[in-house]
Formats: sequence, structure tokens, C-alpha cells
Amino acid sequence: MALTSGDVELFRREFLELHSYDQAQYYLQLDPGVRETVYHYLSPNEMADIYVHIDVDQIVNDSLMQEMSPRYASEMLQNMFADDAVDVLNELDKNQVASYLTLMNAEAAKEIKELLHYEEYTAGSIMTTEFVAISKNQTIRSAMYILKNEAPNAETIYYIYVVDELKHLVGVLSLRDLIVAHDDLMVHEVMSDRVKSVMVGEDQEEVARMMKDYGFLAIPVVDFQEHLLGIITVDDIMEVMDEEATDDYSKLAGVSDLDVVDVSPFSAAKKRLPWLIILLVLGMVTASIIAQFEETLDKVALLAVFIPLIAGMAGNTGTQALAVAVRGIATGEIQNKSKRTLLLREAGTGLITGITCGILITIGIILWQGTLVLGILVGFSIFASIFVATLAGSFVPLIMHKVNIDPAVASGPFITTINDLLSIFIYFGLATLFMNYLL
Amino acid sequence: MALTSGDVELFRREFLELHSYDQAQYYLQLDPGVRETVYHYLSPNEMADIYVHIDVDQIVNDSLMQEMSPRYASEMLQNMFADDAVDVLNELDKNQVASYLTLMNAEAAKEIKELLHYEEYTAGSIMTTEFVAISKNQTIRSAMYILKNEAPNAETIYYIYVVDELKHLVGVLSLRDLIVAHDDLMVHEVMSDRVKSVMVGEDQEEVARMMKDYGFLAIPVVDFQEHLLGIITVDDIMEVMDEEATDDYSKLAGVSDLDVVDVSPFSAAKKRLPWLIILLVLGMVTASIIAQFEETLDKVALLAVFIPLIAGMAGNTGTQALAVAVRGIATGEIQNKSKRTLLLREAGTGLITGITCGILITIGIILWQGTLVLGILVGFSIFASIFVATLAGSFVPLIMHKVNIDPAVASGPFITTINDLLSIFIYFGLATLFMNYLL
Repeated sequence: MALTSGDVELFRREFLELHSYDQAQYYLQLDPGVRETVYHYLSPNEMADIYVHIDVDQIVNDSLMQEMSPRYASEMLQNMFADDAVDVLNELDKNQVASYLTLMNAEAAKEIKELLHYEEYTAGSIMTTEFVAISKNQTIRSAMYILKNEAPNAETIYYIYVVDELKHLVGVLSLRDLIVAHDDLMVHEVMSDRVKSVMVGEDQEEVARMMKDYGFLAIPVVDFQEHLLGIITVDDIMEVMDEEATDDYSKLAGVSDLDVVDVSPFSAAKKRLPWLIILLVLGMVTASIIAQFEETLDKVALLAVFIPLIAGMAGNTGTQALAVAVRGIATGEIQNKSKRTLLLREAGTGLITGITCGILITIGIILWQGTLVLGILVGFSIFASIFVATLAGSFVPLIMHKVNIDPAVASGPFITTINDLLSIFIYFGLATLFMNYLL
Repeated sequence: MALTSGDVELFRREFLELHSYDQAQYYLQLDPGVRETVYHYLSPNEMADIYVHIDVDQIVNDSLMQEMSPRYASEMLQNMFADDAVDVLNELDKNQVASYLTLMNAEAAKEIKELLHYEEYTAGSIMTTEFVAISKNQTIRSAMYILKNEAPNAETIYYIYVVDELKHLVGVLSLRDLIVAHDDLMVHEVMSDRVKSVMVGEDQEEVARMMKDYGFLAIPVVDFQEHLLGIITVDDIMEVMDEEATDDYSKLAGVSDLDVVDVSPFSAAKKRLPWLIILLVLGMVTASIIAQFEETLDKVALLAVFIPLIAGMAGNTGTQALAVAVRGIATGEIQNKSKRTLLLREAGTGLITGITCGILITIGIILWQGTLVLGILVGFSIFASIFVATLAGSFVPLIMHKVNIDPAVASGPFITTINDLLSIFIYFGLATLFMNYLL
């Protein structure tokens, strides 16, 4: 590109031809030194379009905005849609935010400040205040006129929200309705008054589920008195869906965060060690349980051979049951009424899988070791462990959900290790009980 | 509701007041017997709006459409958007599909047949053919006129695609541009010719990523000659994102499917047993490895105590690394160039976590058992296992991705069991080597 050659005109012509997402990709792979030039070649307004497509974490980690002059940065922020600007500011430190806000024009600063103090992961934190609202007592023609003027600034013009004199949300009108409607009709004749909205404090995951279920492109956000505060657009919802999916996924794997590249091994290790150390301790507990049975082990060392098998099976079935329950809660498929159904179902599943695996392993051991008793012992232990593990796997997340803890916290490794412990106890307990037959 | 009372008018008034999603929820919780009445009270066209909001699996599992007369069902299907109808038909058996298609009007049947033979999970399978396309050589006014007429039938009117005489895609125009543009301008003066499109055979996950990155509400689908075949709208993409997330998640947990409720324990067990049996076999391999070391075990039964701890740690670190790699590939964060970076990073992470856990466990065992040698043995084994497991966890999915297998197939339980095996081998290998010091 003409960036290094210093030909501003050529660069702008080539660069602005690209879609803003591609502009962002190009911008990101430049060296900080070269980026300096970009800030001279592009206006803060043009840079704002680019920044919408850059992951907030990356903006912060690579401290991209420190490369710009504070004035340039703040002007860029004020040209972004308020909600996107807020996403960025939320991650910066207080002083930086303050200085940017003071450099902005008062109006933009006010809009952003309003959004800044909504809690993260709530509807308020992802809504934008740039939307089109019209009064119910005007003609379609005048509504259309307003729309044409607002279009450039609004984040979406495909839903137009209708408010009364007191700014209460009273209806909605899709641009589609507007276009096909006759110009002389009144807005309230055309609008739908069955408008769905979310409370400003609503959980973003809940908002995402609602927009997906109803197939909305945008949804209005209201306070407890039904005042229209802002709207949430589908592009932000797609980000949320990605976040939430990654979140459940990482918890199932026991990683606090899934930053993939450009992260030092140390920070990566820091994110995994907390879990590993908890599991280390739980592992020691399991070890001490086995130690209780050392006498048994001394008599029949062969018992040790099947420890990983039994623990492993218990761990895996537990994880399966856990995943079903957690995902079911996340997608909203599991309502309170269906919880009992699920537990009964899982109990049945545990029985069937347990019996099947138990019988298979018994046969396997008889063929391999030629000892009936050991076969039955291991087989029965596997059956019991799988049954218990399946119940534990589905029960734990449901309990957590009931007491309003994110069930995904009962992550895979945790359930696995707990089930290791239970299964080992079952196995050696039975072995000790029936020692006489084993010898 | 007035359903049982037999008051058609009252029922229709109350029912049609609801949003079609809520109508679907109400419809689904009725008894099959009562639903019969609904089919008499509502037109196939009205039912079509409802069915868009019903999960396809549920339609099939509860064989809902068998409750309707074939004529009613086919008329409903022809009133749905082609892509939604196809989603349903794809799940029904050939004969049923055939009979529905014959009952439909020829045009609708043709549209659907065209879509039916696109492979599942490709752009073609989720696109719709109901879109607005205009020619580049007409005025904005005439385009607006076309739009007003097409609006009721098109799935979205917010992007209008521009084609040349040979139906090649040459540009795109958002309704927003259309509204603010002057009526007498020509379409090609206003349209953007930098229109992004996807090939009909493109993977739906890739399409979803693209729409999310670029923030599109719809994207055009073309064949290899750039002919415009259809469009994909954001509501379908949200379904895809949900599918793909659940898919990765279930694979990490080793469940082939996450059907939550309304599933018999038997079908649930059938979905989990394949994995469990594979793992059972792998577990037997692990067992036979330990059996090789029975002599060692006989000498120092205490060794058995730490088997679950070591296997567990290896399994968990492996799963963590796996999750990072799989999710990174899924979100597209991992490009080929960054694969080496990731592996190096993971190697470093493995070293750090391994050393930390190794030292902790060594100290723990010295304090608990008071034996230095055993402590060092277990500590070193933990270190080595974690290091190997971390590398395996990130290496396996990357390899799979390279050979175009869905990396998520390297599911958690699988990696876990493989790592159990490796770690046990390391542990007993070392124990046997240094037996003299242990005694």
C-alpha cells in the first residue's frame, strides 16, 4: 500500500475502498511506528468506523489508543456509536476515561457518561442511545421525513419506536410497515402496540435469547416506568452470544479465559493454575482415601490396575451429564418444571449406561485375567460409579441454578475430580468388604 | 382461552393478538387432541408464522405435522419462507416430503426443491430465495416502487441486491441508502459495488463468522460464476451460532447430542454409550499398562495411592489446552500463521504449570508421608505428565484442523483418557527405574 511512500491521496483512495472490517484487519497488522502515520492520514471520524471492528481486549492489551494523541482518541470515541465507545471506555482506567471525556464535546460526553454507569452484562451496558423515536400523533409522511434526517446518526432505522408525550414506549413500527403504509395515515394507526421490551437491568444472555426466539433485529430498553432509554441491536447480540458460548465452554474445560494468541505463557498459566491447584488438593484427598485401603492393596496389588479405568469412567459420565444440564439451563430449555423430569431421565440413563459398561468390563476382565470375582467387583464398581456420577453431574448444576450461581461454574474438571473420589471410595470399599473372596 | 369453549371468533381475537413466538409456545403446550381444533380455527398461512418459531427437532420428535391433514400441512409449508420450510422437510422422510411437494402449488414446490438438494451445513442449505433484487439501470424511484410491492413477500428488505442483465451480483444498496438518496439518481450511482458474498457451498460456520465480523444483517449467496442465488439473513445465522456453540460444547463433554428434556433415558444412553465404550477400551489399555508394572506395585503398594492424582492432573491440563485450541479455531482467532505461536505458548504454559504443581505436590507428599524420594518421584511425574498433556491437548486439534477434520472431535474425554494413559506410563516407568531408591 501507498502508506510508506507518503502519498496521502493514493493511500486514502485505496484504503477507504475497503470495508471497515478489512480496514481494521489491515490497520492491526501494521507496526506501531507505521500506525502513527495512519493517524495523520485518516480523520478521527474515519478511525471510529475502523475501531468498531476491533476486539476491545486487543485495544487494551496492545494499548492501541495510547498511540494516538488524547485529542484524536477522544474525537474518535465521540464519533463512535455511544454503546461501542462505552465498551472501550469500560476497559480503560479511570483517569484515561476522565481525560477523554473532558476533551469531548459536552453532548457526546453526557451520552457516554449515562451509559457508563450501567452494570456489565446487563441490557443497559450493551444498549445504544442513538435510535429513532417518533410520536404516535403524527402522519407516516412526517415520520418518514424525520427518519430521512435521523438515518445517518441512528444505529438502526429498521425499527422505529413510538413514544407518548412522557417518553413512554407505546408502540413499534418497522421500516417495512412504514414504507408500505399510506403517507396520510397516522402513526398510531399503523404501529403495533404489542411492542416487546427489556428492562435496563436485564441479563444480556436473557436479552440475546429473547431476540433469537422472536427474531428481532433490535429491541427497546426501558426503565421500570416503561420510559424508553435505548435500544439493543442484533450485531451487539451476536457478540454477546459468542461471549456466553465461549464462557460456558471455557468453564467446562476449567480455564478461566480462552485468550488464544498474543498471550505470554505466564498469563496463560496464571489463568489455568487456580483450577489445577484446587484439583491438586482434591487429588490429594483421593490419594489419602486410597491410603486408607493400603492394607487391602497390599493383599491384592492387582486392584490398583483398575483405578484409572474406574475413576476415568466416573469422570467422563459425570461430565456428560453436567454438559447436558448446563447447556439446557443456558439455552433455557430447562425450566423449573422440567428439572424433575431431567433428574429422573438422568437416573435412568445412569442405570442403563452403568449396567452396560459394568457387564462389558466384567466379561473383559474374566477373559483377560480369568478371575470371576475380580471381574464382578470391578464391573459392579463401574456400574455404581457411573450411576452416582451421572446423578452428581446433573444434580450439582441444577442446585447451583436454584441458588442463582452460574451452573457453568461446576466445571468439567471439578465434577470429574469429585467423581474420581466417589468412585475410588466405592471401588475400594467393596474390595475391602469382599476381600475374603478376592484372596 | 376460548379454545375449548368453541368460540372461534373470541379465540382468534385473543390468539392473534400474541406475537407469533408466544403463539408457538401456547400451541406447543396444548394436548394433541386440542391442537386438532387449532388447525380448524387457524388458516395454514397463520400456522406458517407459528411454525417458524418451533424447533425442527421438536416438530419431528413429536410428529406434530402428522396431526394435520396433508393438504393443510403442505399449504402451511408453502406459506413459510422457503428456507424455513426446507429446514423442516430436510428432517422428514422422503415419502412424506414427496407427498407434501405434490400437494403444493407448482411454483412454491419448485423453489423448495431447488433448496432441498443443497448439502446440510452449507450456505445453500440456510439461504432463502425470497429476496429483493433490482437492476443497476433504474432510478431510485422505480427501485423504491419495486420494493413497496415486494416487501410483503421478501424475507428482508433492508438490503437490496443489484444484478446485471445476466443476473450477476454487481452491487448492494441498503434500504437506508435508498431512503436518503435522491429519487432521480440511478441505482448504480448510489449502490456500493464492494458487495461481499459467500459461495453456495461455503460452510455455515464460516458464513456466521463473516456476518458477525462485518456486522451484516444479510449476505448474498452466489455460484462460482457470481450469479445471485439467494440470501442468508441474520436470524438464521443466530440459529447457526447456537448450533455450532452447542456442538463444540457437547463434543468437549463427549456427548453426541445435548437433547435435554422429552428424551427417553434409552435414547439418551444411546447417545453417550459409544463414547463410554471407546473410553472403556482405552481404560483397559491403561489397566494393562499398569499390569505390566505389577511387580513394581507389589514392592511398593503405596505407589497406587497417587495414580488418580497423576492421571487426573494430566487429564485436566490436557482438556484446558484442548479447549483453548478448539475454541480458537472455531472463532477463527487461530490462523495458520499463529499455529506455531500457539504451540510454543502452550509448551511454555505446560512448563510453568507443570513445575508449579510438581513442586507443590512434592512438598505435600514430604509433609504427609515423610518420604523424600516418593515425593520427588510423584512430583516429577506430575510435571512431566502436565507438560506432555498440555502439548497433546493443543497439538491434536491443530493436526485435525490441518487435515480438515473438525478439531472438536478430539473431545475432552478422549484427550483425558489418552493423557491418563501417557501419565501412568511416565509414573510407573520412572518408579521402576528408580525402584532401588524407593525401597
